[in-house]
Amino acid sequence: MRLIRHGEINKEKTGIVLDSKFYDTSAFGEDYNEQFFETDGLKRLATFIAESKGKLPTLAAGFRLGSPVARPSKIICIGLNYKDHAKETGATPPPEPVIFMKATTALVGPNDDIIIPRNSKKTDWEVELAVVIGKKASYVDEHEALNYVAGYCLHNDVSEREFQIERSGQWDKGKGCDTFAPLGPWLATPDEIADPHQLRLWLTVNGKKMQDGNTANFIFNIPFLIAYTSQFMTLLPGDIISTGTPAGVGLGMNPNVYLQPGDVVELGIDNLGQARQNVKAYGAK
Amino acid sequence: MRLIRHGEINKEKTGIVLDSKFYDTSAFGEDYNEQFFETDGLKRLATFIAESKGKLPTLAAGFRLGSPVARPSKIICIGLNYKDHAKETGATPPPEPVIFMKATTALVGPNDDIIIPRNSKKTDWEVELAVVIGKKASYVDEHEALNYVAGYCLHNDVSEREFQIERSGQWDKGKGCDTFAPLGPWLATPDEIADPHQLRLWLTVNGKKMQDGNTANFIFNIPFLIAYTSQFMTLLPGDIISTGTPAGVGLGMNPNVYLQPGDVVELGIDNLGQARQNVKAYGAK
Repeated sequence: MRLIRHGEINKEKTGIVLDSKFYDTSAFGEDYNEQFFETDGLKRLATFIAESKGKLPTLAAGFRLGSPVARPSKIICIGLNYKDHAKETGATPPPEPVIFMKATTALVGPNDDIIIPRNSKKTDWEVELAVVIGKKASYVDEHEALNYVAGYCLHNDVSEREFQIERSGQWDKGKGCDTFAPLGPWLATPDEIADPHQLRLWLTVNGKKMQDGNTANFIFNIPFLIAYTSQFMTLLPGDIISTGTPAGVGLGMNPNVYLQPGDVVELGIDNLGQARQNVKAYGAK
Repeated sequence: MRLIRHGEINKEKTGIVLDSKFYDTSAFGEDYNEQFFETDGLKRLATFIAESKGKLPTLAAGFRLGSPVARPSKIICIGLNYKDHAKETGATPPPEPVIFMKATTALVGPNDDIIIPRNSKKTDWEVELAVVIGKKASYVDEHEALNYVAGYCLHNDVSEREFQIERSGQWDKGKGCDTFAPLGPWLATPDEIADPHQLRLWLTVNGKKMQDGNTANFIFNIPFLIAYTSQFMTLLPGDIISTGTPAGVGLGMNPNVYLQPGDVVELGIDNLGQARQNVKAYGAK
Protein backbone atom coordinates (compact mmCIF):
# COMPACT_ATOMS: atom_id res chain seq x y z
CA MET A 1 0.00 0.00 0.00
CA ARG A 2 0.95 3.62 -0.47
CA LEU A 3 -0.39 5.84 2.30
CA ILE A 4 -0.80 9.58 1.96
CA ARG A 5 -2.23 12.37 4.07
CA HIS A 6 -3.79 15.36 2.33
CA GLY A 7 -5.49 18.65 3.05
CA GLU A 8 -4.78 21.67 5.20
CA ILE A 9 -1.68 21.58 7.40
CA ASN A 10 -2.34 20.09 10.85
CA LYS A 11 -5.81 19.07 9.66
CA GLU A 12 -4.73 16.41 7.20
CA LYS A 13 -7.06 13.63 6.13
CA THR A 14 -5.88 10.19 5.13
CA GLY A 15 -5.66 8.72 1.68
CA ILE A 16 -3.98 6.13 -0.48
CA VAL A 17 -2.38 5.88 -3.89
CA LEU A 18 -3.66 3.12 -6.17
CA ASP A 19 -2.43 2.79 -9.76
CA SER A 20 -1.01 6.34 -9.60
CA LYS A 21 -4.37 7.81 -8.54
CA PHE A 22 -4.86 9.55 -5.21
CA TYR A 23 -7.90 8.56 -3.13
CA ASP A 24 -9.37 9.87 0.10
CA THR A 25 -9.80 7.33 2.90
CA SER A 26 -11.36 9.64 5.50
CA ALA A 27 -14.19 7.14 5.83
CA PHE A 28 -11.65 4.74 7.34
CA GLY A 29 -11.90 6.95 10.41
CA GLU A 30 -8.33 6.76 11.72
CA ASP A 31 -5.28 8.92 11.22
CA TYR A 32 -1.94 7.30 10.34
CA ASN A 33 -0.48 7.85 13.77
CA GLU A 34 1.12 5.99 16.67
CA GLN A 35 -2.11 4.28 17.65
CA PHE A 36 -2.84 3.25 14.07
CA PHE A 37 0.52 1.54 13.63
CA GLU A 38 0.53 0.13 17.15
CA THR A 39 -2.81 -1.64 16.73
CA ASP A 40 -2.24 -3.26 13.34
CA GLY A 41 -3.91 -0.40 11.52
CA LEU A 42 -2.21 -1.36 8.27
CA LYS A 43 -4.18 -4.62 8.24
CA ARG A 44 -7.45 -2.80 9.00
CA LEU A 45 -6.67 -0.29 6.26
CA ALA A 46 -6.01 -3.10 3.74
CA THR A 47 -9.38 -4.64 4.62
CA PHE A 48 -11.09 -1.26 4.33
CA ILE A 49 -9.54 -0.66 0.91
CA ALA A 50 -10.55 -4.10 -0.35
CA GLU A 51 -14.11 -3.55 0.85
CA SER A 52 -14.21 -0.02 -0.62
CA LYS A 53 -12.94 -1.03 -4.04
CA GLY A 54 -14.35 1.26 -6.70
CA LYS A 55 -16.09 3.41 -4.09
CA LEU A 56 -13.27 5.59 -2.73
CA PRO A 57 -13.43 9.26 -3.77
CA THR A 58 -10.47 10.55 -5.78
CA LEU A 59 -8.83 13.79 -4.66
CA ALA A 60 -9.74 16.97 -6.47
CA ALA A 61 -6.97 18.60 -8.48
CA GLY A 62 -4.67 20.91 -6.54
CA PHE A 63 -4.81 19.02 -3.27
CA ARG A 64 -1.97 19.52 -0.82
CA LEU A 65 -0.04 16.50 0.40
CA GLY A 66 0.93 16.47 4.07
CA SER A 67 3.42 14.24 5.82
CA PRO A 68 2.17 10.67 5.21
CA VAL A 69 2.63 9.98 8.93
CA ALA A 70 1.03 12.04 11.69
CA ARG A 71 3.46 13.71 14.08
CA PRO A 72 5.58 10.93 15.60
CA SER A 73 7.14 10.89 19.05
CA LYS A 74 10.54 11.37 17.44
CA ILE A 75 12.50 11.70 14.25
CA ILE A 76 15.87 9.98 14.59
CA CYS A 77 18.47 10.75 11.96
CA ILE A 78 21.64 8.91 11.14
CA GLY A 79 24.65 11.07 10.35
CA LEU A 80 27.31 10.15 7.83
CA ASN A 81 25.86 6.83 6.66
CA TYR A 82 27.19 6.91 3.08
CA LYS A 83 30.90 6.60 2.53
CA ASP A 84 30.90 9.26 -0.20
CA HIS A 85 29.04 11.80 2.00
CA ALA A 86 31.34 11.25 4.97
CA LYS A 87 34.27 11.93 2.66
CA GLU A 88 32.84 15.14 1.16
CA THR A 89 32.21 16.66 4.61
CA GLY A 90 35.76 15.85 5.65
CA ALA A 91 34.60 13.36 8.28
CA THR A 92 36.03 9.89 8.84
CA PRO A 93 33.33 7.20 8.46
CA PRO A 94 32.15 6.67 12.04
CA PRO A 95 32.92 3.35 13.80
CA GLU A 96 29.25 3.14 14.83
CA PRO A 97 26.18 5.12 13.72
CA VAL A 98 25.94 8.80 14.56
CA ILE A 99 22.46 9.49 15.94
CA PHE A 100 20.76 12.84 16.25
CA MET A 101 17.18 14.02 16.48
CA LYS A 102 15.09 16.42 14.47
CA ALA A 103 12.36 18.37 16.25
CA THR A 104 9.04 16.93 15.10
CA THR A 105 7.79 20.50 14.57
CA ALA A 106 10.00 20.45 11.46
CA LEU A 107 7.70 17.93 9.74
CA VAL A 108 5.83 19.16 6.65
CA GLY A 109 4.40 17.80 3.43
CA PRO A 110 6.61 16.79 0.50
CA ASN A 111 5.73 19.79 -1.66
CA ASP A 112 5.50 22.42 1.07
CA ASP A 113 7.89 25.37 1.01
CA ILE A 114 11.26 25.18 2.69
CA ILE A 115 11.48 28.30 4.82
CA ILE A 116 14.99 29.66 5.29
CA PRO A 117 15.12 30.70 8.95
CA ARG A 118 15.89 34.24 10.02
CA ASN A 119 19.63 34.92 10.05
CA SER A 120 20.35 31.79 8.06
CA LYS A 121 23.06 31.80 5.43
CA LYS A 122 23.69 28.09 5.03
CA THR A 123 20.47 26.16 4.45
CA ASP A 124 21.36 22.88 2.77
CA TRP A 125 19.59 19.79 1.37
CA GLU A 126 19.91 16.06 2.12
CA VAL A 127 17.82 13.49 0.25
CA GLU A 128 17.26 10.47 2.51
CA LEU A 129 15.39 7.21 2.82
CA ALA A 130 13.22 7.38 5.95
CA VAL A 131 12.10 4.23 7.73
CA VAL A 132 8.80 4.36 9.64
CA ILE A 133 8.61 2.11 12.69
CA GLY A 134 5.56 -0.16 12.91
CA LYS A 135 5.73 -1.44 16.46
CA LYS A 136 7.34 -0.63 19.76
CA ALA A 137 11.03 -1.49 19.54
CA SER A 138 13.39 -1.85 22.47
CA TYR A 139 16.61 -3.87 22.39
CA VAL A 140 15.59 -5.39 19.08
CA ASP A 141 17.74 -8.11 17.59
CA GLU A 142 19.21 -7.22 14.20
CA HIS A 143 17.77 -10.40 12.65
CA GLU A 144 14.26 -9.41 13.77
CA ALA A 145 14.59 -5.71 12.99
CA LEU A 146 12.83 -5.61 9.62
CA ASN A 147 9.68 -6.92 11.35
CA TYR A 148 9.51 -3.53 13.06
CA VAL A 149 9.21 -1.57 9.81
CA ALA A 150 5.81 -0.15 8.83
CA GLY A 151 7.14 1.36 5.65
CA TYR A 152 9.46 3.72 3.85
CA CYS A 153 9.29 7.38 2.77
CA LEU A 154 11.24 9.99 0.90
CA HIS A 155 12.69 12.63 3.24
CA ASN A 156 14.65 15.84 2.80
CA ASP A 157 16.75 16.27 5.95
CA VAL A 158 17.09 20.02 5.46
CA SER A 159 20.00 21.36 7.50
CA GLU A 160 21.31 24.81 8.40
CA ARG A 161 25.05 24.26 8.49
CA GLU A 162 26.03 27.34 10.49
CA PHE A 163 23.37 26.60 13.11
CA GLN A 164 24.37 22.93 13.07
CA ILE A 165 28.13 23.23 13.29
CA GLU A 166 29.26 26.74 14.20
CA ARG A 167 26.81 27.76 16.95
CA SER A 168 28.07 25.92 20.08
CA GLY A 169 27.79 22.17 20.39
CA GLN A 170 25.31 19.60 19.08
CA TRP A 171 23.63 19.61 15.69
CA ASP A 172 20.05 20.14 16.88
CA LYS A 173 19.92 23.89 16.23
CA GLY A 174 20.46 23.36 12.52
CA LYS A 175 18.34 20.26 12.03
CA GLY A 176 14.97 20.99 13.62
CA CYS A 177 13.97 24.36 12.15
CA ASP A 178 10.36 24.60 10.98
CA THR A 179 9.81 23.03 7.52
CA PHE A 180 13.17 21.21 7.71
CA ALA A 181 11.60 17.74 7.40
CA PRO A 182 9.51 17.48 4.24
CA LEU A 183 8.30 13.86 4.21
CA GLY A 184 6.58 11.91 1.47
CA PRO A 185 4.72 11.93 -0.96
CA TRP A 186 3.72 8.55 0.44
CA LEU A 187 4.59 5.84 2.92
CA ALA A 188 5.15 2.60 1.00
CA THR A 189 4.63 -0.59 2.97
CA PRO A 190 7.53 -3.09 2.81
CA ASP A 191 5.79 -5.29 0.23
CA GLU A 192 6.15 -2.38 -2.24
CA ILE A 193 9.93 -2.23 -1.86
CA ALA A 194 11.75 -5.29 -3.17
CA ASP A 195 15.04 -4.35 -1.51
CA PRO A 196 15.43 -1.18 0.57
CA HIS A 197 19.19 -1.53 0.11
CA GLN A 198 18.94 -1.18 -3.66
CA LEU A 199 17.18 2.15 -4.09
CA ARG A 200 18.45 4.99 -6.16
CA LEU A 201 17.91 8.41 -4.63
CA TRP A 202 18.58 11.78 -6.17
CA LEU A 203 18.10 15.51 -5.63
CA THR A 204 18.24 18.53 -7.92
CA VAL A 205 18.35 22.25 -7.21
CA ASN A 206 16.87 24.40 -9.98
CA GLY A 207 17.05 21.35 -12.22
CA LYS A 208 20.75 20.72 -11.62
CA LYS A 209 21.60 17.26 -10.31
CA MET A 210 23.25 17.60 -6.92
CA GLN A 211 22.83 14.16 -5.36
CA ASP A 212 22.59 10.82 -7.12
CA GLY A 213 23.21 7.89 -4.82
CA ASN A 214 22.01 4.45 -3.96
CA THR A 215 21.15 2.91 -0.61
CA ALA A 216 23.47 0.06 -1.64
CA ASN A 217 26.22 2.40 -0.40
CA PHE A 218 25.03 2.58 3.20
CA ILE A 219 27.75 2.18 5.80
CA PHE A 220 25.17 0.69 8.21
CA ASN A 221 22.12 -1.12 6.83
CA ILE A 222 18.54 -0.76 8.01
CA PRO A 223 18.33 -3.82 10.31
CA PHE A 224 21.52 -2.70 12.02
CA LEU A 225 20.27 0.89 12.40
CA ILE A 226 16.98 -0.21 13.97
CA ALA A 227 18.66 -2.68 16.32
CA TYR A 228 21.35 -0.17 17.20
CA THR A 229 19.02 2.75 17.88
CA SER A 230 16.71 0.56 19.96
CA GLN A 231 19.60 -0.08 22.37
CA PHE A 232 19.53 3.58 23.36
CA MET A 233 15.82 4.39 23.42
CA THR A 234 12.45 2.78 22.77
CA LEU A 235 11.16 3.42 19.27
CA LEU A 236 7.42 3.91 19.11
CA PRO A 237 5.07 3.04 16.25
CA GLY A 238 5.17 5.90 13.77
CA ASP A 239 8.67 7.00 14.79
CA ILE A 240 11.00 7.80 11.93
CA ILE A 241 14.60 6.77 11.36
CA SER A 242 16.11 8.73 8.50
CA THR A 243 19.04 6.77 7.19
CA GLY A 244 21.49 9.46 6.11
CA THR A 245 22.31 11.17 2.84
CA PRO A 246 24.65 10.37 -0.05
CA ALA A 247 27.27 12.76 -1.43
CA GLY A 248 26.31 16.01 -3.09
CA VAL A 249 25.18 18.37 -0.34
CA GLY A 250 25.99 22.07 -0.50
CA LEU A 251 28.39 21.80 2.43
CA GLY A 252 30.47 19.34 0.44
CA MET A 253 30.99 21.64 -2.54
CA ASN A 254 33.97 23.90 -3.12
CA PRO A 255 32.95 26.64 -2.74
CA ASN A 256 29.91 25.72 -0.59
CA VAL A 257 26.52 26.22 -2.22
CA TYR A 258 23.43 26.95 -0.13
CA LEU A 259 19.74 27.42 -0.82
CA GLN A 260 18.45 30.86 -1.76
CA PRO A 261 14.90 32.21 -1.87
CA GLY A 262 13.39 31.28 -5.20
CA ASP A 263 15.32 28.02 -5.52
CA VAL A 264 13.42 24.85 -6.34
CA VAL A 265 14.49 21.56 -4.81
CA GLU A 266 13.29 18.31 -6.37
CA LEU A 267 14.08 14.88 -5.03
CA GLY A 268 13.06 11.27 -5.38
CA ILE A 269 13.71 7.65 -4.50
CA ASP A 270 12.79 4.54 -6.48
CA ASN A 271 9.20 3.51 -5.67
CA LEU A 272 8.83 6.25 -3.09
CA GLY A 273 7.87 9.04 -5.45
CA GLN A 274 9.13 12.55 -5.92
CA ALA A 275 8.83 15.79 -4.00
CA ARG A 276 9.27 19.42 -5.00
CA GLN A 277 9.97 22.22 -2.56
CA ASN A 278 10.09 25.94 -3.21
CA VAL A 279 12.58 27.80 -1.07
CA LYS A 280 11.39 30.99 0.62
CA ALA A 281 12.81 33.43 3.12
CA TYR A 282 11.15 33.57 6.53
CA GLY A 283 8.34 36.09 6.48
CA ALA A 284 8.15 36.31 2.68
CA LYS A 285 4.73 36.03 1.04
CA MET B 1 -1.70 25.95 41.00
CA ARG B 2 0.26 22.78 41.32
CA LEU B 3 -0.67 20.23 38.67
CA ILE B 4 0.01 16.53 38.97
CA ARG B 5 -0.77 13.41 36.98
CA HIS B 6 -1.27 10.15 38.82
CA GLY B 7 -2.05 6.50 38.22
CA GLU B 8 -0.74 3.76 35.98
CA ILE B 9 1.98 4.69 33.50
CA ASN B 10 0.62 5.88 30.14
CA LYS B 11 -2.88 5.91 31.67
CA GLU B 12 -2.35 8.81 34.06
CA LYS B 13 -5.25 10.84 35.39
CA THR B 14 -4.98 14.48 36.30
CA GLY B 15 -4.86 16.02 39.74
CA ILE B 16 -3.76 19.00 41.77
CA VAL B 17 -1.97 19.72 45.01
CA LEU B 18 -3.75 22.05 47.44
CA ASP B 19 -2.33 22.76 50.93
CA SER B 20 0.00 19.76 50.58
CA LYS B 21 -2.89 17.39 49.82
CA PHE B 22 -3.21 15.53 46.52
CA TYR B 23 -6.58 15.63 44.76
CA ASP B 24 -7.93 13.91 41.67
CA THR B 25 -9.30 16.19 38.95
CA SER B 26 -10.40 13.50 36.48
CA ALA B 27 -13.84 15.12 36.46
CA PHE B 28 -12.21 18.11 34.75
CA GLY B 29 -12.14 15.88 31.69
CA GLU B 30 -8.91 17.04 30.05
CA ASP B 31 -5.34 15.81 30.21
CA TYR B 32 -2.51 18.29 30.79
CA ASN B 33 -1.29 18.11 27.20
CA GLU B 34 -0.57 20.32 24.22
CA GLN B 35 -4.22 21.06 23.56
CA PHE B 36 -4.85 21.89 27.21
CA PHE B 37 -2.07 24.48 27.37
CA GLU B 38 -2.80 25.79 23.87
CA THR B 39 -6.43 26.55 24.63
CA ASP B 40 -6.03 28.32 27.97
CA GLY B 41 -6.66 25.13 29.91
CA LEU B 42 -4.98 26.57 33.00
CA LYS B 43 -7.78 29.15 33.25
CA ARG B 44 -10.45 26.50 32.79
CA LEU B 45 -8.76 24.36 35.42
CA ALA B 46 -8.66 27.25 37.90
CA THR B 47 -12.40 27.79 37.37
CA PHE B 48 -13.06 24.07 37.77
CA ILE B 49 -11.10 23.97 41.02
CA ALA B 50 -12.89 27.03 42.41
CA GLU B 51 -16.25 25.49 41.56
CA SER B 52 -15.24 22.08 42.98
CA LYS B 53 -14.00 23.47 46.29
CA GLY B 54 -14.43 20.87 49.04
CA LYS B 55 -15.74 18.30 46.56
CA LEU B 56 -12.58 16.98 44.92
CA PRO B 57 -11.61 13.42 45.91
CA THR B 58 -8.23 13.02 47.59
CA LEU B 59 -5.88 10.37 46.29
CA ALA B 60 -5.69 7.06 48.14
CA ALA B 61 -2.38 6.31 49.85
CA GLY B 62 0.25 4.68 47.67
CA PHE B 63 -0.71 6.43 44.45
CA ARG B 64 1.92 6.70 41.73
CA LEU B 65 2.81 10.12 40.36
CA GLY B 66 3.38 10.37 36.62
CA SER B 67 4.97 13.18 34.69
CA PRO B 68 2.86 16.28 35.45
CA VAL B 69 2.74 17.01 31.73
CA ALA B 70 1.52 14.55 29.10
CA ARG B 71 4.09 13.59 26.47
CA PRO B 72 5.19 16.82 24.78
CA SER B 73 6.33 17.26 21.20
CA LYS B 74 9.87 17.76 22.47
CA ILE B 75 12.16 18.04 25.45
CA ILE B 76 14.87 20.62 24.81
CA CYS B 77 17.81 20.65 27.17
CA ILE B 78 20.41 23.31 27.71
CA GLY B 79 23.95 22.09 28.19
CA LEU B 80 26.51 23.74 30.45
CA ASN B 81 24.30 26.52 31.80
CA TYR B 82 25.92 26.87 35.22
CA LYS B 83 29.45 28.21 35.43
CA ASP B 84 30.43 25.69 38.11
CA HIS B 85 29.17 22.72 36.07
CA ALA B 86 30.93 23.84 32.89
CA LYS B 87 34.12 24.02 34.91
CA GLU B 88 33.79 20.57 36.49
CA THR B 89 33.29 18.89 33.10
CA GLY B 90 36.37 20.63 31.73
CA ALA B 91 34.31 22.68 29.26
CA THR B 92 34.64 26.39 28.61
CA PRO B 93 31.36 28.23 29.28
CA PRO B 94 29.75 28.38 25.84
CA PRO B 95 29.38 31.76 24.06
CA GLU B 96 25.72 30.91 23.39
CA PRO B 97 23.45 28.18 24.76
CA VAL B 98 24.16 24.57 23.90
CA ILE B 99 20.89 22.91 22.86
CA PHE B 100 20.18 19.22 22.66
CA MET B 101 17.05 17.09 22.75
CA LYS B 102 15.92 14.23 24.92
CA ALA B 103 13.68 11.56 23.39
CA THR B 104 10.21 12.05 24.87
CA THR B 105 10.08 8.28 25.46
CA ALA B 106 12.46 8.98 28.36
CA LEU B 107 9.73 10.78 30.31
CA VAL B 108 8.59 9.10 33.56
CA GLY B 109 7.15 10.06 36.92
CA PRO B 110 9.24 11.69 39.64
CA ASN B 111 9.47 8.59 41.82
CA ASP B 112 9.71 5.95 39.10
CA ASP B 113 12.83 3.80 38.89
CA ILE B 114 15.83 4.90 36.89
CA ILE B 115 16.70 1.92 34.69
CA ILE B 116 20.39 1.59 33.89
CA PRO B 117 20.44 0.60 30.20
CA ARG B 118 22.08 -2.61 29.02
CA ASN B 119 25.82 -2.21 28.63
CA SER B 120 25.84 1.02 30.58
CA LYS B 121 28.69 1.79 32.94
CA LYS B 122 28.30 5.54 33.33
CA THR B 123 24.74 6.49 34.23
CA ASP B 124 24.83 9.91 35.88
CA TRP B 125 22.42 12.40 37.47
CA GLU B 126 21.60 16.06 36.76
CA VAL B 127 19.08 17.99 38.85
CA GLU B 128 17.48 20.68 36.71
CA LEU B 129 14.77 23.31 36.62
CA ALA B 130 12.43 22.50 33.72
CA VAL B 131 10.31 25.19 32.08
CA VAL B 132 7.02 24.11 30.51
CA ILE B 133 5.90 26.18 27.51
CA GLY B 134 2.35 27.52 27.62
CA LYS B 135 1.79 28.75 24.09
CA LYS B 136 3.25 28.36 20.63
CA ALA B 137 6.55 30.23 20.51
CA SER B 138 8.43 31.19 17.37
CA TYR B 139 10.96 34.04 17.18
CA VAL B 140 9.88 35.25 20.58
CA ASP B 141 11.31 38.49 21.92
CA GLU B 142 13.29 38.09 25.13
CA HIS B 143 11.17 40.73 26.86
CA GLU B 144 8.01 38.80 26.07
CA ALA B 145 9.40 35.35 26.75
CA LEU B 146 8.07 34.80 30.28
CA ASN B 147 4.54 35.17 28.88
CA TYR B 148 5.15 31.86 27.13
CA VAL B 149 5.73 29.93 30.37
CA ALA B 150 2.98 27.63 31.65
CA GLY B 151 4.98 26.59 34.68
CA TYR B 152 8.02 24.99 36.21
CA CYS B 153 8.97 21.44 37.25
CA LEU B 154 11.75 19.50 38.89
CA HIS B 155 13.64 17.35 36.37
CA ASN B 156 16.46 14.81 36.58
CA ASP B 157 18.28 14.95 33.24
CA VAL B 158 19.70 11.44 33.65
CA SER B 159 22.66 10.93 31.31
CA GLU B 160 24.79 7.99 30.25
CA ARG B 161 28.21 9.55 29.80
CA GLU B 162 29.79 6.84 27.68
CA PHE B 163 26.79 6.78 25.33
CA GLN B 164 26.74 10.59 25.34
CA ILE B 165 30.39 11.33 24.75
CA GLU B 166 32.35 8.25 23.70
CA ARG B 167 30.05 6.55 21.18
CA SER B 168 30.43 8.64 17.98
CA GLY B 169 29.08 12.16 17.74
CA GLN B 170 26.11 13.96 19.31
CA TRP B 171 24.83 13.52 22.85
CA ASP B 172 21.44 12.01 22.00
CA LYS B 173 22.45 8.38 22.60
CA GLY B 174 23.17 9.07 26.24
CA LYS B 175 20.32 11.47 26.98
CA GLY B 176 17.15 9.82 25.73
CA CYS B 177 17.29 6.32 27.23
CA ASP B 178 14.02 5.10 28.73
CA THR B 179 13.38 6.50 32.26
CA PHE B 180 16.07 9.18 31.77
CA ALA B 181 13.62 12.08 32.27
CA PRO B 182 11.86 11.78 35.63
CA LEU B 183 9.70 14.92 35.83
CA GLY B 184 7.76 16.33 38.76
CA PRO B 185 6.25 15.83 41.33
CA TRP B 186 4.22 18.79 40.07
CA LEU B 187 4.03 21.61 37.57
CA ALA B 188 3.86 24.90 39.46
CA THR B 189 2.29 27.80 37.61
CA PRO B 190 4.38 31.00 37.53
CA ASP B 191 2.35 32.67 40.31
CA GLU B 192 3.73 30.01 42.69
CA ILE B 193 7.35 30.92 41.93
CA ALA B 194 8.37 34.36 43.12
CA ASP B 195 11.61 34.35 41.14
CA PRO B 196 12.68 31.39 38.98
CA HIS B 197 16.22 32.79 39.08
CA GLN B 198 16.44 32.41 42.86
CA LEU B 199 15.72 28.75 43.40
CA ARG B 200 17.94 26.39 45.33
CA LEU B 201 18.22 22.94 43.77
CA TRP B 202 19.95 19.90 45.20
CA LEU B 203 20.47 16.20 44.66
CA THR B 204 21.67 13.37 46.87
CA VAL B 205 22.74 9.80 46.10
CA ASN B 206 22.18 7.37 48.98
CA GLY B 207 21.74 10.36 51.24
CA LYS B 208 25.03 11.99 50.29
CA LYS B 209 24.74 15.54 48.94
CA MET B 210 26.11 15.63 45.40
CA GLN B 211 24.60 18.80 43.95
CA ASP B 212 23.60 21.96 45.77
CA GLY B 213 23.16 24.91 43.47
CA ASN B 214 20.97 27.89 42.77
CA THR B 215 19.39 29.07 39.55
CA ALA B 216 20.91 32.46 40.39
CA ASN B 217 24.07 30.98 38.86
CA PHE B 218 22.64 30.43 35.39
CA ILE B 219 24.89 31.54 32.55
CA PHE B 220 21.77 32.22 30.41
CA ASN B 221 18.48 33.10 32.08
CA ILE B 222 15.04 31.76 31.26
CA PRO B 223 13.77 34.60 29.04
CA PHE B 224 16.97 34.40 27.03
CA LEU B 225 16.74 30.61 26.70
CA ILE B 226 13.14 30.72 25.46
CA ALA B 227 13.83 33.54 23.01
CA TYR B 228 17.02 31.86 21.84
CA THR B 229 15.54 28.40 21.34
CA SER B 230 12.52 29.82 19.53
CA GLN B 231 14.87 31.23 16.85
CA PHE B 232 15.72 27.69 15.82
CA MET B 233 12.39 25.86 16.10
CA THR B 234 8.80 26.47 17.10
CA LEU B 235 8.08 25.55 20.70
CA LEU B 236 4.65 24.03 21.21
CA PRO B 237 2.45 24.25 24.29
CA GLY B 238 3.57 21.56 26.72
CA ASP B 239 7.12 21.47 25.35
CA ILE B 240 9.85 21.40 27.96
CA ILE B 241 13.06 23.40 28.19
CA SER B 242 15.33 21.97 30.87
CA THR B 243 17.71 24.69 31.93
CA GLY B 244 20.91 22.80 32.74
CA THR B 245 22.48 21.42 35.88
CA PRO B 246 24.76 22.89 38.55
CA ALA B 247 28.07 21.32 39.62
CA GLY B 248 28.23 17.96 41.33
CA VAL B 249 27.52 15.36 38.68
CA GLY B 250 29.34 12.02 38.70
CA LEU B 251 31.28 12.92 35.55
CA GLY B 252 32.78 15.89 37.39
CA MET B 253 34.20 13.85 40.27
CA ASN B 254 37.72 12.51 40.52
CA PRO B 255 37.48 9.59 40.19
CA ASN B 256 34.13 9.61 38.36
CA VAL B 257 31.17 8.20 40.29
CA TYR B 258 28.22 6.61 38.51
CA LEU B 259 24.91 5.15 39.55
CA GLN B 260 24.72 1.49 40.54
CA PRO B 261 21.71 -0.79 40.96
CA GLY B 262 20.31 -0.26 44.45
CA ASP B 263 21.29 3.39 44.64
CA VAL B 264 18.67 5.92 45.69
CA VAL B 265 18.63 9.37 44.10
CA GLU B 266 16.73 12.17 45.80
CA LEU B 267 16.41 15.66 44.45
CA GLY B 268 14.46 18.86 44.95
CA ILE B 269 13.97 22.50 44.06
CA ASP B 270 12.42 25.27 46.16
CA ASN B 271 8.62 25.23 45.72
CA LEU B 272 8.78 22.47 43.13
CA GLY B 273 8.87 19.56 45.54
CA GLN B 274 11.09 16.54 45.82
CA ALA B 275 11.53 13.31 43.92
CA ARG B 276 13.07 9.96 44.82
CA GLN B 277 14.28 7.45 42.27
CA ASN B 278 15.49 3.90 42.86
CA VAL B 279 18.19 2.79 40.47
CA LYS B 280 17.77 -0.61 38.86
CA ALA B 281 19.57 -2.61 36.19
CA TYR B 282 17.69 -3.24 32.95
CA GLY B 283 15.70 -6.44 33.24
CA ALA B 284 15.98 -6.67 37.06
CA LYS B 285 12.79 -7.32 39.02
